[in-house]
Amino acid sequence: MTGTTTARATAPGPVGIDDLPVREELRGKSPYGAPQLDVPVRLNTNENPYPLPDALVDRIAERVREAARHLNRYPDRDAVALRTELARYLTRTTGHPVAAGNVWAANGSNEVLQQLLQTFAGPGRSAIGFEPSYSMHSLISRGTGTEWISGPRNEDFTLDPAAAAEAIARHRPHVVFVTSPNNPTGTAVGADTVLALYEAAQAARPSLVVVDEAYVEFSHGDSLLPLIEGRPNLVVSRTMSKAFGAAGLRLGYLAAHPAVVDAVQLVRLPYHLSAVTQATALAALEHTDTLLGYVDRLKSERDRLVGELTAMGFEVTASDANFVQFGRFDDAHAAWRRILERGVLVRDNGVPGRLRVTAGTPEENDAFLDAARELTSYVGNGPTPPKEQSA
Amino acid sequence: MTGTTTARATAPGPVGIDDLPVREELRGKSPYGAPQLDVPVRLNTNENPYPLPDALVDRIAERVREAARHLNRYPDRDAVALRTELARYLTRTTGHPVAAGNVWAANGSNEVLQQLLQTFAGPGRSAIGFEPSYSMHSLISRGTGTEWISGPRNEDFTLDPAAAAEAIARHRPHVVFVTSPNNPTGTAVGADTVLALYEAAQAARPSLVVVDEAYVEFSHGDSLLPLIEGRPNLVVSRTMSKAFGAAGLRLGYLAAHPAVVDAVQLVRLPYHLSAVTQATALAALEHTDTLLGYVDRLKSERDRLVGELTAMGFEVTASDANFVQFGRFDDAHAAWRRILERGVLVRDNGVPGRLRVTAGTPEENDAFLDAARELTSYVGNGPTPPKEQSA
Repeated sequence: MTGTTTARATAPGPVGIDDLPVREELRGKSPYGAPQLDVPVRLNTNENPYPLPDALVDRIAERVREAARHLNRYPDRDAVALRTELARYLTRTTGHPVAAGNVWAANGSNEVLQQLLQTFAGPGRSAIGFEPSYSMHSLISRGTGTEWISGPRNEDFTLDPAAAAEAIARHRPHVVFVTSPNNPTGTAVGADTVLALYEAAQAARPSLVVVDEAYVEFSHGDSLLPLIEGRPNLVVSRTMSKAFGAAGLRLGYLAAHPAVVDAVQLVRLPYHLSAVTQATALAALEHTDTLLGYVDRLKSERDRLVGELTAMGFEVTASDANFVQFGRFDDAHAAWRRILERGVLVRDNGVPGRLRVTAGTPEENDAFLDAARELTSYVGNGPTPPKEQSA
Repeated sequence: MTGTTTARATAPGPVGIDDLPVREELRGKSPYGAPQLDVPVRLNTNENPYPLPDALVDRIAERVREAARHLNRYPDRDAVALRTELARYLTRTTGHPVAAGNVWAANGSNEVLQQLLQTFAGPGRSAIGFEPSYSMHSLISRGTGTEWISGPRNEDFTLDPAAAAEAIARHRPHVVFVTSPNNPTGTAVGADTVLALYEAAQAARPSLVVVDEAYVEFSHGDSLLPLIEGRPNLVVSRTMSKAFGAAGLRLGYLAAHPAVVDAVQLVRLPYHLSAVTQATALAALEHTDTLLGYVDRLKSERDRLVGELTAMGFEVTASDANFVQFGRFDDAHAAWRRILERGVLVRDNGVPGRLRVTAGTPEENDAFLDAARELTSYVGNGPTPPKEQSA
């Protein structure tokens, strides 16, 4: 065995991933991530198109400057000030009383989800999501050694509570993901659906139910956060990437029973959240009103996209998020490329016949709608005729 | 099963971690972390005692302000500018040419190590370290589902290359951790030791060898980084927490063959490194000369601690780091408490009969040495007489 490896290391020719002793299931894989292309209009990663207001930029610089004076010291490991302000925000916007002890934060909701999976799933355990859905749920499951189960959705991408509950009863997963609104399709679910899935999950094992509300501030309906009351196995995850216009900050958080917050601390890396991240997030939380004003603008732009795309003859999935899924295309990727040729980057999430566009500024959306209008006149890549809608 | 859980959730009385469906091995565990106590002199977590210079604080505020203007966008997923500057720093300080493609960065070296374990170890695989050593190696191994193997050290805490190689041959681990300098004991190893372990690791499987150089800037000797040349299964991990005086920044990094950098990207969470973290780290790298000046001061203070503790009759482990291990005590924890009563917080890492003190400012070290001097006159908690040294 030595011989082979020593030969590899010293032999001429490039050494690649597959020459290293990586885990078998990683061989031949590619890293996750949307193409990062330098085009005029980027509507592909559900970013908020509005830069932070100047007053907030100033406040971030000020708070980071204060934090930098003590940067030689480790940050507050428990991020108490930040969790307190996040709890205040949740209480104010949902009407449900949330305390710092109900809240946990990490570097993006991806890290929150990873910590939940390390605590409640992992090797020998399983997680279910109802696909198409946020692809990181399955990726982080696999990354934590958790078996992934792909649960069903209706053809119109809504969730059928009975079919979902049946899948939970059959597979008995340890973690159940429910996205509301769902990404990449856009539709939110009601409390009744989550309650049906929670009951099924408790009956099956019991398991942890994670409601991913990354886009909930854009929803027509209310947050499902109040459901955590009296349900210690229900977690709501959130992010500051979207409504707070702070994708670059990487701040995700969850609200749950305090026992869940205690539990994830058994697996979190100590001092995972830097002092500059905590300072920046605290500054942003001081400017909640301004930032939620942008959310209102984006909701009305999102509704405009739905309306205009529908009028053009596209099949549009109902959206509670800052993005819209539209189709159908015989060849979604060819359509994606044609839109890109017009300088507009949208997302091909791999949902057959569909693309996803993020709601941008009015000008960005106009550019996208112009490109979409042109598509409808292009034989083979315009929307498929209505007769096939139920196919 | 439902009945039980529903009863739990609604029954009076507090719900605790063990009422949740957490993984079996987490039950009864406590989160990792040194006690965070508010005392005048904190010499317990190997922080750099020197706050960042004003010019650097200004520069951080400036660069973060620039980054905050685009905070609505995701950060550079590949952190190319930061990796380029880290490579430049490594090239300059080790004399070995390192390119951006050799470097990867994450939120603290803990996250770097977690990504390495997810890629090269994980469920069904194992990792070895030579203990006592950095306790996060075993904790992150367990957190990633990796079996942990505790390898041997000599009684004086040095590493016996033959015994270590023998343990590698016997256990055939997938990842081998070598710390240089070792934490909490303080001593560095030479290139010959790492080469012996690397050869053993390649013969056994082959496995990945991770040389943890978190404290290497404080060492009497050179970095082992040049050993990565022609050895694709050798990784050197580093941090900006110590020499750069930026524990609050949470910036760890590694240097290795580009194939290793490609491989960890298969498991990294996308956009794991925030725009503010990247901006702050880039600012700090502009001030490398000033920061390395503090390192020189700390090395001479470290040597003073070794000298004075030895003169007091303590048994002191040779240190290449910014901390010193000293003993012996019949009851190390009682000695820890007595030092704390004098307003000085040191670390009880659980090494029998030993404590660890971080090199602070001259004034902080004076306060510690006064407390230590008092210990020597306290029966039962002073150093154990020399005759027992080989016990």
